[in-house]
Amino acid sequence: MLIQILGSAAGGGFPQWNCNCANCAGLRNGTLVAQARTQSSLALSDDGEHWVLCNASPDIRAQLQQFAPMQPGRAPRDTGIGAIVLMDSQIDHTTGLLSLREGCPLPVWCTGMVHEDLTTGFPLFKMLEHWNGGLRWNRIELHDSFVVPACPGLRFTPFPLRSAAPPYSPHRLDPHPGDNIGLLVEDSRTGGKLFYAPGLGEVDDALLTRMQAADCLLVDGTLWDDDEMQRRGVGTRTGRQMGHLALNGPGGMIDVLARVPRARKVLIHINNTNPILDERSAERAQLQRRGIEVAFDGMQIVL
Amino acid sequence: MLIQILGSAAGGGFPQWNCNCANCAGLRNGTLVAQARTQSSLALSDDGEHWVLCNASPDIRAQLQQFAPMQPGRAPRDTGIGAIVLMDSQIDHTTGLLSLREGCPLPVWCTGMVHEDLTTGFPLFKMLEHWNGGLRWNRIELHDSFVVPACPGLRFTPFPLRSAAPPYSPHRLDPHPGDNIGLLVEDSRTGGKLFYAPGLGEVDDALLTRMQAADCLLVDGTLWDDDEMQRRGVGTRTGRQMGHLALNGPGGMIDVLARVPRARKVLIHINNTNPILDERSAERAQLQRRGIEVAFDGMQIVL
Repeated sequence: MLIQILGSAAGGGFPQWNCNCANCAGLRNGTLVAQARTQSSLALSDDGEHWVLCNASPDIRAQLQQFAPMQPGRAPRDTGIGAIVLMDSQIDHTTGLLSLREGCPLPVWCTGMVHEDLTTGFPLFKMLEHWNGGLRWNRIELHDSFVVPACPGLRFTPFPLRSAAPPYSPHRLDPHPGDNIGLLVEDSRTGGKLFYAPGLGEVDDALLTRMQAADCLLVDGTLWDDDEMQRRGVGTRTGRQMGHLALNGPGGMIDVLARVPRARKVLIHINNTNPILDERSAERAQLQRRGIEVAFDGMQIVL
Repeated sequence: MLIQILGSAAGGGFPQWNCNCANCAGLRNGTLVAQARTQSSLALSDDGEHWVLCNASPDIRAQLQQFAPMQPGRAPRDTGIGAIVLMDSQIDHTTGLLSLREGCPLPVWCTGMVHEDLTTGFPLFKMLEHWNGGLRWNRIELHDSFVVPACPGLRFTPFPLRSAAPPYSPHRLDPHPGDNIGLLVEDSRTGGKLFYAPGLGEVDDALLTRMQAADCLLVDGTLWDDDEMQRRGVGTRTGRQMGHLALNGPGGMIDVLARVPRARKVLIHINNTNPILDERSAERAQLQRRGIEVAFDGMQIVL
């Protein structure tokens, strides 16, 4: 299984257009040792030619341009994207579908809850009907694994995550299973197993067991501290309120990952305020000592 | 008046993610002498510090990053954008508003018809309400000029254009005045006048008179030939059907511009199939002989 990180930042990207936190300002003025990052998205393939896009970020145009296999050039209009899987209905995971309208019809896998958001509050499925048939919905049933025709060697097993529906969602204050999912993706040829959860608010024992079965974890690294947005003076919401388990502190993601010794551990969906973006920070060094990597745009993983 | 071209391409940009026409393939493989271009947007200012964004393209994040005055860095969260003016409700002119959600509330000027599309088919005004008050609508009345508080030295005079509502619009087959507008922008200090119309399907005598009053024309350069999409084998719709007057042929935009001898003439909203993108093409040479420029990302004009 080939895993290509197209975008490794949380919503807003790094730097964020309107942010002057130490990270964003430091990256802009060249005083910070750090890489710019686009918004959360990755591509999976079993053959290097046909790809499953996980999430469609607002930065999708630039992301596809940076990864040559996404334009194989076999026909006047062509793409390496064989299917799209959505983990949730967040703006930073779905807006890119609008930029794919010239390539419709496109097969999209998502849960019933995500499809409901994307036909009501943010009606992408309805809007895109007017482009050559639009998005062809394939329903993800919680706990039922599925195979995407474009990549028959990969088996996707979804699982519900405790997180929050987007602010625009008609049921934003009334969470449902299926608002957010994680995926276990297994390559039937190599046996390689990926655990992917860019938004992860809580890890219970059942989830920990799933994580322990994987060879590689791509997990929520949004925030270092739960109150990071307040500390940096750029927001009022906590990680918990946004459905993200912070890395630091007792019971935080670093503690969780210590209980999964075997797997390769890679943080993804990094918020622009997170000190781990600074490659010379104490927090980044702490991750390194614990064998935890930080995803970057263009990172490739083979399982 | 300062005019900054943030994006000079039509919807899809150049190259377009799924296109292998001679231009897109040539740019990718390095055989074409041409510049990549992001999607249609520009910024206007009377002081270089406060800017009016005309249209919010899907490429807005990259565009703002490329133009330093858009991040003046005066506060932890800040922007150089003082207001947004929309010319229509097309996806390539409005999707970027989603990427500005962290900066809400934001003042947006648009017509009643555009506001209707953006509260129904593509309900950006409703979605963004959940981000700190969202978009504050200022209604553009056709034929009534207006001033945007952020740039008090600029006077905006809108005029309706004959073009088409977007495919997703509830009234896409039933055109109304106000679906698309052009703008005459006048700097009250310098007297400089800009005529801006990125989507222009037809030029009648009244419109020609407006054009003749301007010092600079930024006009629709989408297609060279009306049937260009078919010729290149990448589409079936004509320029006319999409609301764009092609450059070439009798009564085409080149002929129209010949009747405005005094003004600086700059083409904008260039489609990826247009041969003028090839800097060594006969079509580009023809423009040059006629004193017509082709806008590029990062182009600056002072009036």
